[in-house]
This record gives sequence, C-alpha cells and structure tokens, in this order.
Amino acid sequence: MNFSFEVAQTSPTGARRGRLTTPHGVVQTPFFLPVGTAASVKALRQEALEELGAEIILANTYHLYLRPGHKLIRKLGGLHKFMSWSGAILTDSGGYQVFSLAELRKITDDGVRFRSHLDGSEHLLTPEKAAEIQLALGSDIAMVLDECIETPAPRDKAESALRRTTEWARRSRAYFQEQANRDGELAQWQFGIVQGATFSDLRRESARQLLELDFPGYAVGGLAVGEPHAMTCEMTAEVTALLLRDRPRYLMGVGRPEQIADYVALGIDMMDCVLPTRAARHACVYTSEGRVLIKNSRYAQDERPIDSACSCSVCRRYTRAYLRHLFAAGELTAAILATHHNVHFYLDIMRQIREAIEFGNLGKFSSEMHARYAAGPV
Amino acid sequence: MNFSFEVAQTSPTGARRGRLTTPHGVVQTPFFLPVGTAASVKALRQEALEELGAEIILANTYHLYLRPGHKLIRKLGGLHKFMSWSGAILTDSGGYQVFSLAELRKITDDGVRFRSHLDGSEHLLTPEKAAEIQLALGSDIAMVLDECIETPAPRDKAESALRRTTEWARRSRAYFQEQANRDGELAQWQFGIVQGATFSDLRRESARQLLELDFPGYAVGGLAVGEPHAMTCEMTAEVTALLLRDRPRYLMGVGRPEQIADYVALGIDMMDCVLPTRAARHACVYTSEGRVLIKNSRYAQDERPIDSACSCSVCRRYTRAYLRHLFAAGELTAAILATHHNVHFYLDIMRQIREAIEFGNLGKFSSEMHARYAAGPV
Repeated sequence: MNFSFEVAQTSPTGARRGRLTTPHGVVQTPFFLPVGTAASVKALRQEALEELGAEIILANTYHLYLRPGHKLIRKLGGLHKFMSWSGAILTDSGGYQVFSLAELRKITDDGVRFRSHLDGSEHLLTPEKAAEIQLALGSDIAMVLDECIETPAPRDKAESALRRTTEWARRSRAYFQEQANRDGELAQWQFGIVQGATFSDLRRESARQLLELDFPGYAVGGLAVGEPHAMTCEMTAEVTALLLRDRPRYLMGVGRPEQIADYVALGIDMMDCVLPTRAARHACVYTSEGRVLIKNSRYAQDERPIDSACSCSVCRRYTRAYLRHLFAAGELTAAILATHHNVHFYLDIMRQIREAIEFGNLGKFSSEMHARYAAGPV
Repeated sequence: MNFSFEVAQTSPTGARRGRLTTPHGVVQTPFFLPVGTAASVKALRQEALEELGAEIILANTYHLYLRPGHKLIRKLGGLHKFMSWSGAILTDSGGYQVFSLAELRKITDDGVRFRSHLDGSEHLLTPEKAAEIQLALGSDIAMVLDECIETPAPRDKAESALRRTTEWARRSRAYFQEQANRDGELAQWQFGIVQGATFSDLRRESARQLLELDFPGYAVGGLAVGEPHAMTCEMTAEVTALLLRDRPRYLMGVGRPEQIADYVALGIDMMDCVLPTRAARHACVYTSEGRVLIKNSRYAQDERPIDSACSCSVCRRYTRAYLRHLFAAGELTAAILATHHNVHFYLDIMRQIREAIEFGNLGKFSSEMHARYAAGPV
C-alpha cells in the first residue's frame, strides 16, 4: 500500500495534525495545495515550488483533458513526468470547471455534455470518464465527478444535485475499483465529494451516503462560492462531525488567509485556492500585517521588502519599490516575484498552523490573522 | 581607477580575447549583454541571471527616465541597488528609443524634443541630459546621445546626422568630465558612438572625430537596422580598423546567433540584442542544431530537451513536449523557461567564441554556426 493517512494529534476544537503518505512523498497535514491548472503553477518553475517546500500541488482535469489531452500525458509517462514534478499531485474531477467555464452544458443522469471554452468542440464528461482521465494523468489523489450548482440554491435543486452526486460517486467508485483491481497495485486514491448546498440536513445526508461508498478521503464541495464565511464554517462543521477520523478531509477552493485556521479548527486537513497565485498577478501581496496592493504609489520609494517578517527569497532580495516599478512597467518578473512570495505566505501559514496545533494555540493564531486581515489593505 | 580594459590575445583576423574591469566585477570579452529594458530582463529573476553566469546586462535610459524616473532610482541608491543586481550594467543613451518609440519628436541642434509613448508628456533630451540621467542611474558604462536615422539614408541626411552626433558627443563628454571631476572618483565610463549610416567614408570620419574626444570605449551605432549582413560587417570593419586597440568596441543591437562570431572576427568586444529574450516569448528557442519553433505540433510528443547538447537548468529538466504545451496554454512559465534557455544559449555562444579565439579556430566556429542557422527552423 503506497498510501496512508495518520493523525498524530487532535486539538480540543477538532484541528488535526497528521501526515499523508503518497507514492510521491509524505505531505504534512493540514496542508495547502498551490493551484497548477494546466500542469504549471502560473509564473513558477517547478524549481521554485521545491524551494518553497511545496509537497503537493493541484492540477485541473478539465484543462488537461482539453489541452494537451490525458492520452498524450499518459503516453508521455503521466503528469508527474510530463511536468517534471516529483512531489504529490491532486487532480480535481473537472466538474467545477465544466459548470463554470464550459459553454452549452447539459446535465443528465448520464453526465455533463458541454462545449470546450477553447474551441467549441463537444464533449461528454461522465463519472466514469472523469475517473478514467485522472487515472491516465496518474495523479496521486483523484476526485469523483460531482454536480456543482449555483449558490444560493433552492432546496429542490440542492436535493436533486445531491441525489445525482451520490449516484455519480457510486459509479465513479465502481469504475475506479474495477480499474484499480485490474491493474494490481493501487497508484491513486479516489476521494468522494460531499454536496448539499447550504442545507445542514442535506450536507449530513450527503456525507452519510458517501461514507457508505468507503472512500479513503472526503472533500467538502460547493462551499466558499459566495455565501458568508460563517455559513461556510457551519456547513463544514456539519460534515466533519460525521466523517471518519482516520481519513483526510479536504475543503475545496478555500480560502482567504484569515479563514484558513478556521477551517483547520473544524477538522479540515487540506485546502486549495487560486487566491495567492491570482492575487499576485494582480499586484496584491500578502504580508504578516495584511494585504498590500503593491502598485499603489505609496510604495514607489519603499525600500522595505514585501514583508519584513518573511524569509522567502523575494523578501530577502527585492524591495517594494522595485516590485511596484515592475508591476507599473508591466514586466513579467513582477508576476514571478509576487507569486513566489504569496505561495510562500500560504505555505508558511500552514506551517504556522501545524505548529499551533502542536502547541495548542491555534485559536490565538486565528484571532491574530482575523485582526490583521479584517481591515482593508495596509 | 575602477575601470580597465585589457586585451590578452588578438587573432590574425582581429578578434580579441580580453577582460573589462568595472566597479561591479570583471567581464570577460567578447561578451553579450542580455537586455533588461526596464531594470528587468523580461521573465528572469536576477537569481536566474546569476545562475546563467551573466556578468553584465543592459538597461534602457529612455524607459527608466520615463518610469520610474532617474531621480527616484538615484534616491534609492542607484540602479544596481534598485534592482538588486551586483553585476555590471551598461545603459544606452535613450537616443535610439526616442527615435523609435516616442511620438512627435523634433530634433534640433540642442537635442530631441519628444512626447512619452506612455502618457504623452513632453520631454527634451539633450546630450547633457542623457549623461545626467545615466550618472543618476549609476550604470557602469554610459553611452553618449547620438542622432539615429532611418536606413537606408540619403547621403545628405547621413552627413547631417554625423555632424550632429559628433557635436553631441563633444557636449556629452564635456558635461560628463565636469561631473566626473566634481565628484572625484570616477564611477562610470562613457562611450562614444560612431555613426555614418552605410557610407564608408562617413563611418571613418565619424570614428576619427570621436577619437579626438578620447572616450575610454567606442560603440558602432546605426547598424543592423535592416541592411544586409555583409553591409553591417563592411561598415563595422571600416570603424574597427581605425579604433584604438586598447579600448573596448561595442556593436550595438546585434545579432543573430550565426552573426555574432563574424562581428567578433572584425574586432568587436561587446554586443547586445533583444533577440534571445524576445524570440523566447514568441516560442522561438535556439539550439545547437538551429532555431526551434516550439509551438509547432511536431513537438507535442517530443520528450527531448530543447537542446540535447545544452547544459542549462531548463534543458536538464523539461521536455519540448512540456514547453510546447505551456506555450499552447498561454502559461507564464513558458516565457520563463524559454527565456532562460535562450539567454544561456547566447552566453554560451560567447563562451565558445572566447575559447575559439584562444585556440585559434574562430573561423571554424563561425562556419558551423552559419551552416546550422542558414536554413529555416529545424
């Protein structure tokens, strides 16, 4: 067995300190997944990810299926070899992108028919197909196809999506297990995704139904899509209360720096978000004092690093004044430096959170982060 | 004296192997200057330039004058500190950019009046101002302001530009020497620029006039702007035949990989060109076999590095298939990897050329390069 998950410590609130073992290395939990949509974390070489200590990244099934294609990647030895990344990789199922990016999508019980946002070509994504693509990519962790709906959703729509998500999860699991059994050694873990919109009872029902399918890990999906943070936490708590203690829990698509510790406190072990990388490209950098909108003219003569408390290679060398200039001049290096720093910031938050769990002061860490990030940019 | 230039060896054709000592390190000659227009070599962190072994880079006076401004850079400790680059820096005079980028330019004997291409603001660039800006930037080597004309130019226009270029060089030199004397220690070298379009006698006249001004180094300007390579070489030879043997010679804005050795054979010690960095961003990479247009579908499954004979960190890790995918997907990392390789390729050409001079086989190197690059992309 190439995979395992161990919880070393659980805090009174439910925060867990553990480790996830994959065929591509051990990942300390809780962890954050930098997003590498098209097999690249935008503006970072894999060497930079290694320097930053990233142990796992996320890649998007929808994007890689459309371009360059999962069959090409399989032929070239799988995603790790294709992108020359020896750390772990998680792939999403493509469901969220089909619902948010693709055109003319039509959902049936069979799957989702859609047109590519790249060339308009028509495709059918079924639970089996999503599993097949991810097996071809060879990611360490694969996600089942779920039905993503808009928030806020009426109850009948949430119920219908929940029913379909469970049925798709069943088919995903069956297909995956058949493939896994056929090939002998298990090279991938497949996670289920709990849906249920903002209805507590539906969230609990979804969790219970998925637990019956015996996934090695569970994600909470369909949250942080516009609802208040308190609602995200409430729904997450409903789910984590039911999930097995010995399996990893993944809250998809979160979060803002000050929210991360809240999710960890609710028992979440894994998170991913485009925020640090996307914000960096828009000249928003994160610091121990709060957000800094580095293009602001107030930084034109600022000789300090982005964050004086930061030990990343960007903060050790470059000034705010220089970074501000690079953004003003539209230089590619601006995105490179800002992304490097922001990913470091997120990975460092996780390091601090893991330490806070060990020393029993996660609440204090969370309060400080909220205080720093409650106001607008500094 | 912080500056010196020594020629260790001269080949029968006139190629020189030497070294240029600056306050920011020794630069082996002949050398190539990667272009860092706005105080950044596009898509490369300064760490990458160090890894690549770049000993000197070029920055553009016109761009830095307009944004962020030379006074700001001086206030922040000069260009080296501003961009955190401890190697040598050469700045052009801004003349070429005023003539190629700015709007509504009007040339008088006093200088060039122009509108910024950024915000339409009006500026007057005089020989004294160009020198003042470069002293504020604190580059190691500054260039005098010259009048750049379009090629092919009629003789009367070339004569007029030559007359003005010499007069401006005289004023530049006078202003610079006054400043240099005032401040005591010399922190910069100022180079003259030979003009004369494609007229041999004008080129010789320009060289003679500038020699009287006793610059520590001389550039050949206004070439490689559309005329045939043979003409570039002919004009360059006319000039280098007259220039002093103990002073560096800089051919501005060249060249293509296969042309570099030709210029060195004519006695050129320094060159700069946007080609390796700009071509990289347009998915053209240089290899020991010739140009590779990496977006071509023929590379979709190519598991080889960009250049199997290359030792750069990109070629040691990434495949053509991956780079092709990154370009197809519009990923920022594509430009980062391609630029890194192309700059390595150019710096490596210079290393090979220096070695070829030492071993007396520059002609062979040149023939091989022409053979490889004579045809279209491989």
